Amino acid sequence: MKKDFGNFKNVLIIGLGLIGGSLALSLKREGFEGTIYGFDLNEDRVRTAIELHAIDKGFTKLEQVPWSNIDLVILATPVKTFEDVANQIKPFLDKKTVISDVGSVKGDLIYRLSEIFKPNVFIGAHPIAGTEKEGIENAVIGLFKNAKLILTPTEESEQLTRLKKFWEDIGSNVEIMNPHLHDFVFASVSHLPHAVAFALVDALIKLSDEKGIDLFQYPGGGFRDFTRIAASSPTVWKDIFLENKKEVLHTIDEFINSMETLKKYIENEDEQNLEKLLAESREKRLSMDEN
Amino acid sequence: MKKDFGNFKNVLIIGLGLIGGSLALSLKREGFEGTIYGFDLNEDRVRTAIELHAIDKGFTKLEQVPWSNIDLVILATPVKTFEDVANQIKPFLDKKTVISDVGSVKGDLIYRLSEIFKPNVFIGAHPIAGTEKEGIENAVIGLFKNAKLILTPTEESEQLTRLKKFWEDIGSNVEIMNPHLHDFVFASVSHLPHAVAFALVDALIKLSDEKGIDLFQYPGGGFRDFTRIAASSPTVWKDIFLENKKEVLHTIDEFINSMETLKKYIENEDEQNLEKLLAESREKRLSMDEN
Repeated sequence: MKKDFGNFKNVLIIGLGLIGGSLALSLKREGFEGTIYGFDLNEDRVRTAIELHAIDKGFTKLEQVPWSNIDLVILATPVKTFEDVANQIKPFLDKKTVISDVGSVKGDLIYRLSEIFKPNVFIGAHPIAGTEKEGIENAVIGLFKNAKLILTPTEESEQLTRLKKFWEDIGSNVEIMNPHLHDFVFASVSHLPHAVAFALVDALIKLSDEKGIDLFQYPGGGFRDFTRIAASSPTVWKDIFLENKKEVLHTIDEFINSMETLKKYIENEDEQNLEKLLAESREKRLSMDEN
Repeated sequence: MKKDFGNFKNVLIIGLGLIGGSLALSLKREGFEGTIYGFDLNEDRVRTAIELHAIDKGFTKLEQVPWSNIDLVILATPVKTFEDVANQIKPFLDKKTVISDVGSVKGDLIYRLSEIFKPNVFIGAHPIAGTEKEGIENAVIGLFKNAKLILTPTEESEQLTRLKKFWEDIGSNVEIMNPHLHDFVFASVSHLPHAVAFALVDALIKLSDEKGIDLFQYPGGGFRDFTRIAASSPTVWKDIFLENKKEVLHTIDEFINSMETLKKYIENEDEQNLEKLLAESREKRLSMDEN
């Protein structure tokens, strides 16, 4: 099928960080022929985005944006600013404009944003892509290519079909998911592992202090890979943990249960159950590589 | 300095698995000119080791070994068999023979083995190398090259100097460490991360069951890297957790503390302390990459 990016012609990306910047670059690379507008409160970022040929035009004030031209707005600021941004841009929106985002938390927030934007259509989107780096200067041109992208609509609409095509033409594999299920899934496979990585490094700092030895000099046995994600942005992850608080706490509890079970088996020298738990985890992990 | 492998000429490797096999291959590759003998109860492994040109001669019965020739024995069977193997080979040992191992647990075990082998000298060794694979068919020729190797002697001796040279000539970076400190360090940087990876996959199996969704289909956000080590051998890791029980339990407790602290900050929406914990972990993790 011909690339038409869902027939969106003029796109405004609000927030020119790693994800916003990578989206702009990806659109150019994939042959998007419309105009890419960028908005950021930070003038340096707007300048960098223009210098990188990521955006065609950039703005630092909402009044400067040619709102009647824009048919797609993508929120790419931190998730916790979304409602604030929504309320600020709402008075400017043309009635044809579709709004979406690239945030990693959905759930209730998506329903609240849908309410704010009515009668305009808002559709949540979460590209399963990113690096532990930040900022437009670390933008990656192929970030969304062959990556999953989850759309979390609150209702069926023609705009959903268009947005799906938009992301497919960028190269993403689009999947539709209920906003609440989305938060459960990503609390489990992304937020929990990040929490665990941060906590593991924290524990090693404390264990180092306890014995007066720098344990980080001994990064054997996969430890380096294992804690790479602990180098992710503290601000971004603080916000994600708090925005998705309910599901994150639920998955942390489940994980602490598993950790306590493992501990009990070791304490009791329960070889049979210990090996069973390890073997089941191994089998499941190996099955992932076959996907 | 000329390679003389500590002037050991005839080496016997007991246990021809991944580590034993890789050691034999590494010796050949690094120009060891002595004879490499291999022992394993499993005839297939001995045959494979000969076919791979890893060992010069192989045996499946202790009586077959030319014991009076052997000046270095390396125990490369599972750690939990060491005392049993020690008691079995003890009557055969020539008085010049030095004994060492490649096990990942030291501590009390090293003192017990030293007692069993007296008057022969036993020196514990732990190469910080390995893969999540098993078996001589997965042996890696450069496994010890530029890798750390920890020697955990119970006393100074001339044999310690020789064994240090042996491993340096294989290409390892040798470090001397107290056997108990060794167990604390590797409980922290290796055993704990493995326990965490196994428990994380276990938690995700349970969370998948809870919602009737296969969470392993969504391996975003570093999850794949993060849990790679959960594909390690259940038998090997069960043994390590139990052999190093005391230190492993101690590090698990410290880690659960960190996890509970993180959970509390999220529960209380304590943004300041949450971001501080994440930032300190990030800073420490980033400092590792500079090493």
